[in-house]
Amino acid sequence: MSKNLLTKLQYSAPPESQLIERANYEVIREIQSLGLRRLVKHCWEHVPFYRNRWEKIGLHPDDIRGIEDIGKLPVTNKSEIEKDLKENPPFGTFQGDLPACRIQSSTGTTGMPKPFFQSKHDWDVIGNLWARRLNAQGVTAGDRVQVSLTYALFIPGFTSTEGIMKLGAMVVPVGSGAVTNTERQITLARDWGATCWVMTPSFALHLADVAEKMGYDLKKDFQVKRLIHTGEPLPPAMRERIEERWGLPAYDNWGSVETGAPTFECELKNGVHINEDAYYFEVIDPETGDRLPDGKEGLLTVTTLYKESAPLVRYNIGDFTTIIPEPCSCGRTFRRMASVRSRVDDMVKVRGSAIYPQSVEPVVRKYKELGSEYRLVVDYVNNRDIIKLQAEIVQDCSVDELQEKILNDVNKVLGVKCNGVELLPFGTLAQEASAAGRIKFRRLLDLRKK
Amino acid sequence: MSKNLLTKLQYSAPPESQLIERANYEVIREIQSLGLRRLVKHCWEHVPFYRNRWEKIGLHPDDIRGIEDIGKLPVTNKSEIEKDLKENPPFGTFQGDLPACRIQSSTGTTGMPKPFFQSKHDWDVIGNLWARRLNAQGVTAGDRVQVSLTYALFIPGFTSTEGIMKLGAMVVPVGSGAVTNTERQITLARDWGATCWVMTPSFALHLADVAEKMGYDLKKDFQVKRLIHTGEPLPPAMRERIEERWGLPAYDNWGSVETGAPTFECELKNGVHINEDAYYFEVIDPETGDRLPDGKEGLLTVTTLYKESAPLVRYNIGDFTTIIPEPCSCGRTFRRMASVRSRVDDMVKVRGSAIYPQSVEPVVRKYKELGSEYRLVVDYVNNRDIIKLQAEIVQDCSVDELQEKILNDVNKVLGVKCNGVELLPFGTLAQEASAAGRIKFRRLLDLRKK
Repeated sequence: MSKNLLTKLQYSAPPESQLIERANYEVIREIQSLGLRRLVKHCWEHVPFYRNRWEKIGLHPDDIRGIEDIGKLPVTNKSEIEKDLKENPPFGTFQGDLPACRIQSSTGTTGMPKPFFQSKHDWDVIGNLWARRLNAQGVTAGDRVQVSLTYALFIPGFTSTEGIMKLGAMVVPVGSGAVTNTERQITLARDWGATCWVMTPSFALHLADVAEKMGYDLKKDFQVKRLIHTGEPLPPAMRERIEERWGLPAYDNWGSVETGAPTFECELKNGVHINEDAYYFEVIDPETGDRLPDGKEGLLTVTTLYKESAPLVRYNIGDFTTIIPEPCSCGRTFRRMASVRSRVDDMVKVRGSAIYPQSVEPVVRKYKELGSEYRLVVDYVNNRDIIKLQAEIVQDCSVDELQEKILNDVNKVLGVKCNGVELLPFGTLAQEASAAGRIKFRRLLDLRKK
Repeated sequence: MSKNLLTKLQYSAPPESQLIERANYEVIREIQSLGLRRLVKHCWEHVPFYRNRWEKIGLHPDDIRGIEDIGKLPVTNKSEIEKDLKENPPFGTFQGDLPACRIQSSTGTTGMPKPFFQSKHDWDVIGNLWARRLNAQGVTAGDRVQVSLTYALFIPGFTSTEGIMKLGAMVVPVGSGAVTNTERQITLARDWGATCWVMTPSFALHLADVAEKMGYDLKKDFQVKRLIHTGEPLPPAMRERIEERWGLPAYDNWGSVETGAPTFECELKNGVHINEDAYYFEVIDPETGDRLPDGKEGLLTVTTLYKESAPLVRYNIGDFTTIIPEPCSCGRTFRRMASVRSRVDDMVKVRGSAIYPQSVEPVVRKYKELGSEYRLVVDYVNNRDIIKLQAEIVQDCSVDELQEKILNDVNKVLGVKCNGVELLPFGTLAQEASAAGRIKFRRLLDLRKK
């Protein structure tokens, strides 16, 4: 396969993308070099945010001859984008000066959502990359795919829908539980015979809880063959619980509003493949900012090689992860990234120790008596931090005994002493999650004054 | 302009569609004849629902040589589609046997939503027709268009978004109030400088109520230049109230999930133009089913000349209207339909008389003391039907005096005696509308046992 032909296939959807996903790695590096040179030139001419920063340090586009020079470009931090937005309202200077076709944004859990523009080209590419995800996870033109993600400023509802249509499959766009309630979503999936279901991992478990309460057998009453996830991390214990309850494979797809659809898991479910024609991923040392070799854990920075509007150049997204050096036995040459262990933003300090709410995930998933929802609540009482776990009961059990067992387990994984376990009636937390919008529902509630 | 060239422009988006919108009417009739022959052949080969019905009455595709033969085809009623769905679950035989790319559906206020398939071609055409709407209403590539319609199975959120992108404008897809709350929608419209806003008429008034409560001056604090409506009727009194409050032109666009985007209002705001290359509209006598001449009021039947999936052939949609015979002075040759006065589905019988909730609209819009929301409540008390009007107060007033004045006015327009007027605190009805999903919120609440 010639380099020229493969360059034409960059950013493509399946079936063409099959060739690029399996290209000789040297060709991928060349495509990345072409992409980076074009991106840097584009940013210099059209994106004041980058030009200003580069001029200050005496960097010129000619200094970037290929992907090997990427280290010369400064890392971009979230706080710089936020500062740019504040100083140049309403959209900052990082969007660039070319026409865009839509705004998608972060969810704005705290404060206002951060806008990210998409050009027609950007939107088209992201749809293609979603089609790659679905294809790698076994979806075909014969599938009927129910999308239970929010359609609004948050991006994956719309982009998964584009990908499904590009693949020639049929989409059933039901949206979030706020728009089509959970019971109706379950009835529609069953009555209209969905064969694939796209949603956040926590919604997959919530759907399982509700479907069982409605009297359905998850393994017999649906024609669904696979569950496709994005929008939240999919830690191993959670995947195990989802797959066990539904009796179906569940796939991870790491991405974000800023980046689009940068990765996909293949059928081997062992880390997410990076779409390396469209993105350049690095892992950097959180202290020094130095690039780390593959296999070392650090902070992920993303460069969007294809993007015209709101492009990212070495954007530190705040996720700890590792690039997996070994080639995947699926045959794809695209490198893989380990499942994201934690987001810096999710971390809180309790009695001086760093706590990640995901660390209790394996404990919650172990108990069949517990529903899918949980959260850690931190408070400041009598001059000290206290932390407790809240979870929901779905099966009859001896509550006191169960609380004690769970507390024991939590204390083994949390790193600081847990002050209590509170078991709530089914639906208590789900209702809050639904009211807040599932993506915004946090696994940690910090009640301390800030 | 040659017929061949115009045939190529059928179903197109602006700017090309400008030619077809103003074509010689004889050419439009020829395009309709071509479209009808193709549609009938398609239904015969791919849509068992129609073939079965036609075979029963001995009708063959060869019997339809042009649009003048349309009267030979039987009228399709909603109940037949519902029967087909029930007998051939889950999708009936009216969708046809070709691949479709998505399901959109009726809102399913009562019972389950009715699915309507869309092929890629259908979806593309509907996006083009939405671009025609926006173009006729003054939207250009320089606009930033906030879409405050539900994105889910109900269609206009998605299709307006496609139209905005096709026009080269930028979309801000905030979705319904259930997904992005009303206050945030207002803040985003202001901060991100929306220049055009797409929403239902009742949401336009609700946004006005809430924005004023937030302290905004509707005429000074926004950059919005026009309001574009669909999803609900826009009776004259409601348009007047919306335009007066916002100080902006408000446009009507009649359509539905079944039909797509069949009509658009032009800048003259005097009835909606029918996209006559893509649809054939007739008005029939509700008693005899006979076709009525232009200018006579009757039941609208729609034929989707372009549609591949779930096509409609003389579909009686249940709306009373009139085709306006006079040409429009905007220069478009597409005929116009009078604003839909009422839906058969909205009618209720009270003490034997037919009541349409819209009939009290002018009364509610007349009083500045009242908010945007209202409804009629019908109940059966002491062996008789009673009917009362509920509305919200937004300004200090003498409640007793106001109630009496309103009751007087309502009695003049309603046709049966109104038993009372109940004035509620601001927000009471809006909350219910929001919880129910705005499109599903009914202006009539019937509490009588059925």
